This record gives sequence, C-alpha cells and structure tokens, in this order.
Amino acid sequence: MTLLSQLTVEEKASLCLGSTFWQTAPIPRLGLPEVMVADGPHGLRRQPEGNQTSISGSLPATCFPTASALGSSWDPDLVRRVGEAIGAEARAQGVAVVLGPGVNIKRSPLCGRNFEYFAEDPLLTGVLGEAYVEGIQSQGVGACVKHFAANNQETDRLRVSADVDERTLREIYLPHFERIVTRARPWMVMCAYNRVNGVHAAQNPWLLTDVLRDEWGFDGVVVSDWGAVYDRVAALDAGLDLEMPPNLGVSDTALVAAVRDGSLDEAVLDRAVERVLRLVERAPKDVQPAEFDAAAHHALAREVAADCAVLLKNNGGLLPLQPSEDDIVAVIGEFARSPRFQGAGSSQVNPTRVDIPLDELRAAGMRVEFAAGDDPAEAVALARRASTVVLFLGLAAGDESEGADREHLDLPAAQTALVEQLAEANPRLVVVLSNGSAVRMTPWDKHVPAILETWLSGQAAGGAIADLLLGAANPSGRLAETLPLRLQDVPSYLNFPGEQGHVRYGEGVFVGYRGYDAVGREVAYPFGHGLSYTTFEYRDLVAGPGIATLTVINTGGRRGKEVVQLYIAAPSSRVARPLRELKAFAKVDLAPGEATIVTFMLDERDLSYWSPADRRWVLEGGTIEISVGASSRDLRATATLDVPAPPIRAALDTNATLREWLADPEGSAALREAVGVGPDGTPNGILGDDDTLTVLGDFPLHVLTVFPGLGIDRSVLDKATAGLPS
Amino acid sequence: MTLLSQLTVEEKASLCLGSTFWQTAPIPRLGLPEVMVADGPHGLRRQPEGNQTSISGSLPATCFPTASALGSSWDPDLVRRVGEAIGAEARAQGVAVVLGPGVNIKRSPLCGRNFEYFAEDPLLTGVLGEAYVEGIQSQGVGACVKHFAANNQETDRLRVSADVDERTLREIYLPHFERIVTRARPWMVMCAYNRVNGVHAAQNPWLLTDVLRDEWGFDGVVVSDWGAVYDRVAALDAGLDLEMPPNLGVSDTALVAAVRDGSLDEAVLDRAVERVLRLVERAPKDVQPAEFDAAAHHALAREVAADCAVLLKNNGGLLPLQPSEDDIVAVIGEFARSPRFQGAGSSQVNPTRVDIPLDELRAAGMRVEFAAGDDPAEAVALARRASTVVLFLGLAAGDESEGADREHLDLPAAQTALVEQLAEANPRLVVVLSNGSAVRMTPWDKHVPAILETWLSGQAAGGAIADLLLGAANPSGRLAETLPLRLQDVPSYLNFPGEQGHVRYGEGVFVGYRGYDAVGREVAYPFGHGLSYTTFEYRDLVAGPGIATLTVINTGGRRGKEVVQLYIAAPSSRVARPLRELKAFAKVDLAPGEATIVTFMLDERDLSYWSPADRRWVLEGGTIEISVGASSRDLRATATLDVPAPPIRAALDTNATLREWLADPEGSAALREAVGVGPDGTPNGILGDDDTLTVLGDFPLHVLTVFPGLGIDRSVLDKATAGLPS
Repeated sequence: MTLLSQLTVEEKASLCLGSTFWQTAPIPRLGLPEVMVADGPHGLRRQPEGNQTSISGSLPATCFPTASALGSSWDPDLVRRVGEAIGAEARAQGVAVVLGPGVNIKRSPLCGRNFEYFAEDPLLTGVLGEAYVEGIQSQGVGACVKHFAANNQETDRLRVSADVDERTLREIYLPHFERIVTRARPWMVMCAYNRVNGVHAAQNPWLLTDVLRDEWGFDGVVVSDWGAVYDRVAALDAGLDLEMPPNLGVSDTALVAAVRDGSLDEAVLDRAVERVLRLVERAPKDVQPAEFDAAAHHALAREVAADCAVLLKNNGGLLPLQPSEDDIVAVIGEFARSPRFQGAGSSQVNPTRVDIPLDELRAAGMRVEFAAGDDPAEAVALARRASTVVLFLGLAAGDESEGADREHLDLPAAQTALVEQLAEANPRLVVVLSNGSAVRMTPWDKHVPAILETWLSGQAAGGAIADLLLGAANPSGRLAETLPLRLQDVPSYLNFPGEQGHVRYGEGVFVGYRGYDAVGREVAYPFGHGLSYTTFEYRDLVAGPGIATLTVINTGGRRGKEVVQLYIAAPSSRVARPLRELKAFAKVDLAPGEATIVTFMLDERDLSYWSPADRRWVLEGGTIEISVGASSRDLRATATLDVPAPPIRAALDTNATLREWLADPEGSAALREAVGVGPDGTPNGILGDDDTLTVLGDFPLHVLTVFPGLGIDRSVLDKATAGLPS
Repeated sequence: MTLLSQLTVEEKASLCLGSTFWQTAPIPRLGLPEVMVADGPHGLRRQPEGNQTSISGSLPATCFPTASALGSSWDPDLVRRVGEAIGAEARAQGVAVVLGPGVNIKRSPLCGRNFEYFAEDPLLTGVLGEAYVEGIQSQGVGACVKHFAANNQETDRLRVSADVDERTLREIYLPHFERIVTRARPWMVMCAYNRVNGVHAAQNPWLLTDVLRDEWGFDGVVVSDWGAVYDRVAALDAGLDLEMPPNLGVSDTALVAAVRDGSLDEAVLDRAVERVLRLVERAPKDVQPAEFDAAAHHALAREVAADCAVLLKNNGGLLPLQPSEDDIVAVIGEFARSPRFQGAGSSQVNPTRVDIPLDELRAAGMRVEFAAGDDPAEAVALARRASTVVLFLGLAAGDESEGADREHLDLPAAQTALVEQLAEANPRLVVVLSNGSAVRMTPWDKHVPAILETWLSGQAAGGAIADLLLGAANPSGRLAETLPLRLQDVPSYLNFPGEQGHVRYGEGVFVGYRGYDAVGREVAYPFGHGLSYTTFEYRDLVAGPGIATLTVINTGGRRGKEVVQLYIAAPSSRVARPLRELKAFAKVDLAPGEATIVTFMLDERDLSYWSPADRRWVLEGGTIEISVGASSRDLRATATLDVPAPPIRAALDTNATLREWLADPEGSAALREAVGVGPDGTPNGILGDDDTLTVLGDFPLHVLTVFPGLGIDRSVLDKATAGLPS
C-alpha cells in the first residue's frame, strides 16, 4: 500500500502548504516528518524558534560573497565550493533545503535585489547557478532555484506583469533555469511573485507545467515565494505544489472543498502530494544539531572574495601596493571601518565574524592612518602626507534591499565629492568599491588611476581586500554586468520599472551588453572586463564544427587567472540577433610564461535562436562568427564557421508574399512558369514591372489575385502551387 | 419607403465592395450611381479607363509638395489651400473621394512611405491633417484619412502585427485620427493593411467600431486599403463597410451566404449599406469633365514649397545669395537638372509640369554653371572658379517607395564623397537636400556652412528653391521629424521592422523627439528646428489655467515667419511621461520690428495621460511646466502651472499595497489606528520595523496577513478598511 493511498484528502491538502513559516507539514500518524527550509542564497538565514518572521536575529552562519560578487568570479568550481560549505552549514543547522540560488537576470542595474543575482547574461548565470546547486546538494540537502520567472525588479513585485515575448523569455530569462534544472536537478524551484504576461507566476501553467515539467523534466517541488499564491486551487492546477508561508485554514480548506465539489481533480492534488512526499524522502533524517567549521568557512569566504573582485583600472601599475616601512598609507572612508558586505532583506545573514578592512591592512603590515572622510579637510591633509591613498566608496545600506529598486546609479554625492580633492592632494589614489549592483563611474573615475570593485563580498571581504591591494592575491574577477556611462543608456531604461501593473520588456533580447552593443553605445566598463597583475596573450584560434580551441599564455611576471570568453555572432540571420552573445568561457590559472590550450564545445543550440513562429530552436545555415577575448569589447581573435544547416524557407502557400516566392529558387521557377512571358520574352504582369513589384512585393499572393492586370489570378496561383516540388 | 428597404440582399452585398478598381457599385434599377475614388494624397492619381491598376499613366494633375514637406510648413492655412486645390482638381476629374491624407506617425525614418506622412508628432499631424481634409471637402468632394491604424512600416505590411500597448496607441498613434475625425468629419477612413495586436485592422472591431464610431462618432464609410480584407464577413462585422478593390464573386457571395445562413446579422449589413448610401448621397452628381486652373495651382505649389523648406544651417549668413553680375554660381548635382520631388507608389502623380532648379536659378538672373558631379574633378574645378557653390544632394528614387523600407539613413556615398572636396575648393558651399525622410547628416555636414532641406516638394520645388536661395522667399519650415546623428539612436531602432510577423512597439510613447529627449541623446537637428533670414525674440510668457500668452517680435531686417512652439512637461507624474510634448503651435508672419501676441489655449486633455487601468484620460494634480520656443531644444521661456486636480489615489482595498495605504493620509491613519502601538508608543508589528517595511512594503495587505508577527491579521485588515471615510 503506497503512502499516498493512506492519506485522507485533508492530509493531502495539508502537505501542500507549510505547517509553520519554514516547515512543511508532518503527518505524525504515518511517521511523516516535517521538512525545514531556510533562506539563502549566500549563507543561511535560519531563524530560531519564536522569531520566525523577523529578518534579523538568525542563527550565526558564514556570510559568503553575495551573488553580485560570485557572478564576477566566472568560476563554477569556486561557486561549487561555496555551495558545499553552505550545504554543510544547512545540515548542521537542521535545514533540509536552502532557498537559493537566486538566478534572475540583471535587466536593469536599478533592481534592488541585483546583489542576489549573478549576471546580465543567462549563460554565465546558468553555469554558476548549476555549480551552486551541485555544491549544496552534494551535502545531502536541497537547493531551491528562484525566482521563476521574469522577476527582474522589486517595484510592485507582487502585482506587476512582466510583459515579455516568447523569444526573449526563451533566450534571456529562461535558459539558465533550464540549464540548472536539467543538469543539476535541484530539489526545488521557487516561483516568482510577479505575473508573466498577465498570469501570476504561481498560477502559470505554461511556466510551471508545460516548460518546467514537460519540457525540462523537473521532478522536484515547486514552492511559492512567500506570499505569492493568490488562488490556491488555480495555483495547484498550474503546478504549484507547496504554498509558503501556510495560509492555514484558508488554502487547505479551499483545496479540500475543491476536491469535494469536483472543481479540482484529486489526481492533480495527488501529483503535488507525491512531489512533496519525494522531498520528505530526500530530506536528511534524524537531524542532530551540529557544529560546522566556522574558521575554515571564513577562510574559504576570504579566498572566494579575492577571486570575485574586479580590477577595473590600474593605470601605471599602481596596484599592487608595495609600501616601504616608512610609507604612510592613507585609508579614507567609513566603509574601511564599517564594511558593507551584504544587502538587506531575506538574504541577510547573521555572520560568524566580520573582517574589518582597516584592521586587515594593518595586520598585513601596512602603516595605515585612517580618516572617515566626513571631514574633507582632515582627509585631504592625510592624503597629502601619505605615500598612497586608498579610498573606500560604496552604496549606503539603504540603497540595496529586497523590496525596493534604486532610482539612480550614483554613489552618494558626499563620497564622490572627495575624489577630486584627494586626487589633487595625492595622485596615487586607489578606490575600493563596495556595492551590489552597477554604479555610475563618471565623472569621478577620471581622477583615479586604480579602481577595485569588490561588490558585496561577504564577511571576509576585508581580508580579501588586503590580499588584493598588497598582491597576496591577484585580481581575477570579470564584470558580470556592464557598467554604463549613464542610467539613460541602459537598454531597459524607457521600460523600467513600468507603470499601472505592467512592465514592458521593450528591449527584447537586447539586455545588458547585447543592448549596448546593438546600438553602439559607449560604456564605462564593458561586460567581461577585468584586469590582472599579470598579462595574457591569445593565440591560434581554430574553430570547427562544434569545437573551438585556442592557446592562452601568461605573458606577465606573476601567476594569475584569465577568464577566456567566447562570443558568437550570426550576421546574416533573418531575425535580429545580438552583435555578440557569450556562448562559452573558461577560467584558467597560469604561472608566468605558462601556456594552456583552451577547448570550447559548441552545440547546435548554442548557435540557434528561438523561433516563436516554429515554437522551437532554429539553427540557420550561413556564417557564424566566433570570437574569443578578455571582455565583450576586447576580442582578440575571430574565426568564421560555416553552418551547413539547410536555408530557412518560407512555406510557399498563397499567404506567402510575392517576394518570398521569388526568393525561393523553386518557388520563383514555378511562379514564373505559371505567369508566363510575352512575345518579346518579357515576363507578364507584375513580374515584368519593377516599379509595381517594389510596391506590391510584400503582398501575399492571394491578395494579388484581386488586383487585375498583374497576371496573378487564381488559376495562375493554382498552377504555381502545383508546380512546386512536392 | 426607404432606399435601404428596396434593396435585395445581393444588392446590399454589392454595395459593400467596389464594382471596379476605383468605383463603388451602382444600382441602375434604383438610379443609384457609382462613386469614384482616386489616390492622393499630394495630388490626384486618377487612372484613365483601361489602365486602372498601373501606377503610371494617370491623368495630369498638380503634384503638390508631399506630406514630408507639408509637415514642415507647420501651417494649417497653407495645407488647407493645398486641400482646396486638390479638391478642385478632383471635381474637375470626376473624382468624388480623394484617398488622403496619409497621417501615420513617423515611428522610424526608415519607413518607405514616410514621405506621405506629416510628422513624428500626433498634434502636428492632426492639425495639418484636419486642415487638409477641410480643404478638400470644401470643394464638395470627400477626403479619406489613412491608414487606420499603427501602419508605420512597409516591411511585411499585409501580415505584420503592430504589438502596441493601449497608452501608446491613445497618446501617439490615434490622437490625430481622433482630431481629424471629430473636427473635420472626413467622408472616409481607410483601414491599414497590418494587424494591430494580432487582429487585422480590417477586421478589428475595437478600432473600427468601439473607438472610431462609438467614441469618436465617425459617420462616414470605412474603406479597406486595397487588398486589406482577409475575411469579408468578419471585416463587415468589425465595421469595415467597403472593400476595395472588389473581390467580385467571392466577397459578395460570402456576404449573401452569411446572411442567409444566419452567421451574419442582416442588420450589420444594413448598417454598412446605409453608410455607403450616405456616401453616394454626398458625392457630386452629374459630373462633367472640366478644366482646372493648372497655372494657378502650379503657382500655389511653388508658394507652398517655399514655406515648407527647412533652413537647417546658415553659418555666417551665407544665404540668401546676393551674387553680383560677374559672379559665377556653381550648381552641382544631377538633382538640379533632374529633380526629385515626389516618391514612388500609389501616391505618384503625373505632374502638369515640372520646374527644373537649374532653369529657375538662371531665370532668376544668376550666372550659373552646372556640373552633374559624376566627374568630381570637373565639379571641383567649377567650384574653384565660382563665387559660391550650390550642391544638390538627395536620396535616389528607388530609396523611397511605398512597399519597401530603407535599411540605412545614408545619402548615396558618391554624393557625400563630393562634399569635402567641394568645401576645400570653395568654402561658400550651400547644400540643397531632396529627400522624403530623415537622412544622416554626419560626417559631411561639418564641411557645409548652409543647408536647405527641401524634402520632396512637388512639381514647383525648383522655383521655390530659386526663391529661397536668392531671398525672394524667406525660409519658414521647421522640422516635423528629428534628424538623428545615427540610425542606432532612433528610439524604435531595436524594434524595427520586427520579425516573424510581429513588430514590438518597445519604445512605447517615446517616439521621435520624445525618445531622444527621454534618454538625453544628442541629435543632428532637433524636432521643430529651422532657421530664417530674420530673427525673433520671445517675451512675456504668462501661463494661467487653460491659457498661455507670449509676445513674439521680429528683431531682424526682413519680413519672416516664425513657428512658435509650446511644449509641456509633467515632472511629478506617476507614469513615465515625455520630457517635452508639443501641445500647441502657431506660425506668425511679422514685418521687421513687428511684434504680436500669441495666445495658446490648453484644455484638460492637453495635460492628461491615457490610463489603461482607468480606461480614460487622467488629469493629475501637480505642476505642469509650460515652455515656449523655436524648437524642441531651443526653449526660450518656461512657466509653471499648478493643476488643481485631486491627487490620484490608489483604491484602498486589500489588494492595495502597504506603501499605498501609508501614502494615503486617510489610509495611513486608519491602518495605524487598526495596528495600534506598544506601551512605549512605538507602532506595533511591521509599522514599527523600518527594515521589514522596506522589504515588504510593496506587498498587498491581504498577503501580509499570512505573515505572522507583522501585526496585520484579518481582523486588523477589517478594522482598517472600516476606518476609512466612506
């Protein structure tokens, strides 16, 4: 007798919503335990009993670099290790499922939750999200990928409809979910709060069933974002298995009533219950509270943070610093003393400890003097007598939170006002940035020879910053999001965050670098950009069907990591395609003088576009350009590949246009034969009249039959159709 | 007994489609004559018997400036006179309805039919379209406004769906149709070929009935664009009265069968027939072939063309030319000898005569030498020995045709290559442009001190050019479309012309200058720009409720016309509104030293936006900025107006968000009262916890009830709702 068959309808309904804010429902009479979940993604937020709904006061856990930083690592192995550590902490704290990773695309730098997301690109997001899930799940606990789907802003997030066409969904907003679901098999997927094309994600059968289950084969539990369910019965029907938090007495009653009155098929309820039962089966049993190795995890957090920081600029090789014993290094800015290392909201971790950059720089042996910078005169005086100035800039804590989008890209004016004065006082000026999403770099960056973007990099960011500034670590992060010159340059600018309950994804697939490239817009720092303390050379790119290889050499004087990026273009496509699309990347670690061969595999899907008309991925014949480089705008070599796919041909029926018929060799022959020629060999009717052909060329053939004198009547049409090869 | 009641079903059906390519069906037994229509819009294209479907060979008629030129006149009185003349020619040729004006918005400069349309702005389009219809209809013949609606490209024009949200339709693509229909009462409206949000315009009940008839009160005939009907019965049902050209034996048979089998209500057929009968009633009776005053019309065409040309640039007052008797003026470019003055397609007029610019310049007394420019060496040598060079540039005839969009904005490279060489040979270089839509001005324009944009300005353009260059006429045209620096800067760029049967209007209301302004994009020449041989000063702007006045003074040495433009901004609107929107304009004619007071009336609608949520125009309370100036980027004075409308308040129900409740004074009071305070006066729950409020502020209240500990349970919610003033 199966477990399912022993359950009453009431018990089944109870399994489809939580019993507490963080737990599924147990069925004690059958020995079925509850399953505990806890917020992620860059560390656990496990609320203690009695304080379940507050955001603060969670059990101490390691705060790893946020996804804004992890995204810049371009390093799935590193992200997998973070996942493993978080998974281990989850086991130790009795948590069966970690609510992460967050993998939404950074459609606008204004999105208040961007610090929880990896990138503006779906491939980079997908590869890192996959590694993160694998890491967590390797510890015997589950990951929950969120927020599915098109949840790209905080403004009006529970009601707004993301109005987005299917090609854009398939190419930008879904591929990373697909990759993670099909490759890493997460235990859970969390639906988004928002509507997608008018239908709540929680009640969207196309998303939750057609795509997620039927196409991608997802076999886990779909859980609601907390509070995302409007209509429990409709949500269950659409494929939403587990509602959180429990709307006790309402949702369960509604499910039971719907089964009783026949408006909900009990088989649909059973399907959801089976998935929840599988989750219970997967979850760790007999969990005992345990310790985790906080010191080791902190050390990992420091190593990871160092690999995430992006060296945006390093004129004259100012970094790494090599202060002599007598040199005073001026450290300016409150963030050096009170670091920002995570954002606000459900992801907020209660860290086990926090590295203070100022302390870490001193501990590394630097002779540091500090000024908070709230008194410019003091800061300038300090800068004057210092050998070098390290200025900490960043967004204020209130600027980056779940629940609210930013309204501009600027750093606080009081901070940037200092830059020019300090640069005048001392041109050896290094800026260290702490922010979870793109900020505007102009006009202040022109005064600064070296800029290190550290993002929100977790509790050990302070130590990592010391390692990077002094050269104990070599920067290897690369931008996972474009830094634009101005907010108005952002491709989604005119359509963010929408109004009156709708946000139009008017830029289509041209999100992030795809958009800046399409309109040839200058940016402050392009997607994929990041410097190193060493240099790399690219050689011998060879591209063949399905494979591209090249050699990368460390040509500088230090060991370092390079992120080799492969972009494709399809210049002759019949649809509008980005000028460059990231299709593969690899992070390689090379000693000075060392060379390595990097091999990229490309499959048909990598070269295809989604055709809404055909409802599938379409591979076009023609030329594909394959470029490799150190950023999306620092391409070092390009090869072309001839794709031997058959040409895309319009279906030559009577709704096809005259131009479509004439563009097709067989269609043209059949039509010309049917229309015939005059005594002097000139084609009859419109085929002999170029001016009219220009005007009427985009008319479907059947419409031309109502125009007398064009030589295309119904009999000609029948003849032309019959003349096609069958 | 009414006429309608005497008609058989077959006769009724016959009246709903043409009997020939250009005529409605007669009913001889009832003495009901046919009605003849003919193409416009900038002159008649009346095909002779026996050659009905060709584009060339029409009866001679005056080719007036195309709409690309008329739009730049900003002068409804002038356009009305053109309409009168075309109406007179129609009467003389037995034409009862002129198929024009074309009033589609220039969404992209690439649209191949832009030369037939007035502007990128709906107000300017509406005012000119209204005057044009009034002019034609003053002659006792009808005008037919086209193409209704959202027909903004030629690519795939019979199948493509313009996917455009309602606010954008109401604010950009429909207001001019509304103005013309409600004020000028055209006899006909022609539906577009394309689909609008998936539904063919010819079969779109929302467009043809809900909006056009029920909202705007249109009482004329809706005619199909030629070949636009896919399903005759569905089209009739939607409000399409007359199908052209006749799909004889198919459409009439289908209508009769549908009435017989009950799938079409005969009342629907009757409604269409009554409209066609009214058209027959309105049409001139017993038409005799007549002459029109071709010489007078040609003179009018010359006067009008002079008032349409836009003096883009006139460094150092190079224009008007004042050659001495000995000065040789070099005229270079084939267009001086073979002028382009109209575009290709259904609008193509067989002109009564054509002014040749070269001849007109000579006739004006200039000592002219000519080089075609196909031999640069010859042209340069001529330029060297001339006192001044007048270079004619323009698009090739094949670049501008109905049926095909352009793919770039560039003038032919062979033409622009000459510019720098000629400028080196002779810095006194004047460029005269002939093109029907925006062209790229860079990089060649930097070499040219004076540029006169003449558009496609009809058969008398040559004479007008001579008048303008020599100062017999003073330029007074202003740009009706922005000239961008690059094609990629065009707001619709990423979404034009669409693919796979859909074009996304992703830029929303930010079309033309509204888009360039919104993203702060530099342009070559802004909307509204145009110079004069005299100068104007703006003084004493005063704005009050519904009215704005200012004084304009001719401060230069010549009589001239100024186009005074009024733009509004609503900086504190809750929806995204353009930085500037044209809301009124006036063209004033002033003698040197003369001043005039210009008065603009503004009504509520002028200050409102369309709210799709409310399905109506909404006037927001707050500040409106009213600016007047000589172009959209040459604003001379700004006044602010306090709009006393009540603030827009969210409906405070349980689906309203916490932020919406708190933003409303009464909602906030009621909610705070219901939630209560603790012993120390701190608000309970989420109202006393700013961090949680940030994260959950955009949650609807009913969702917060499922979050324990926030202090918002169902009883609180009931209490808060009850606490609102009823």
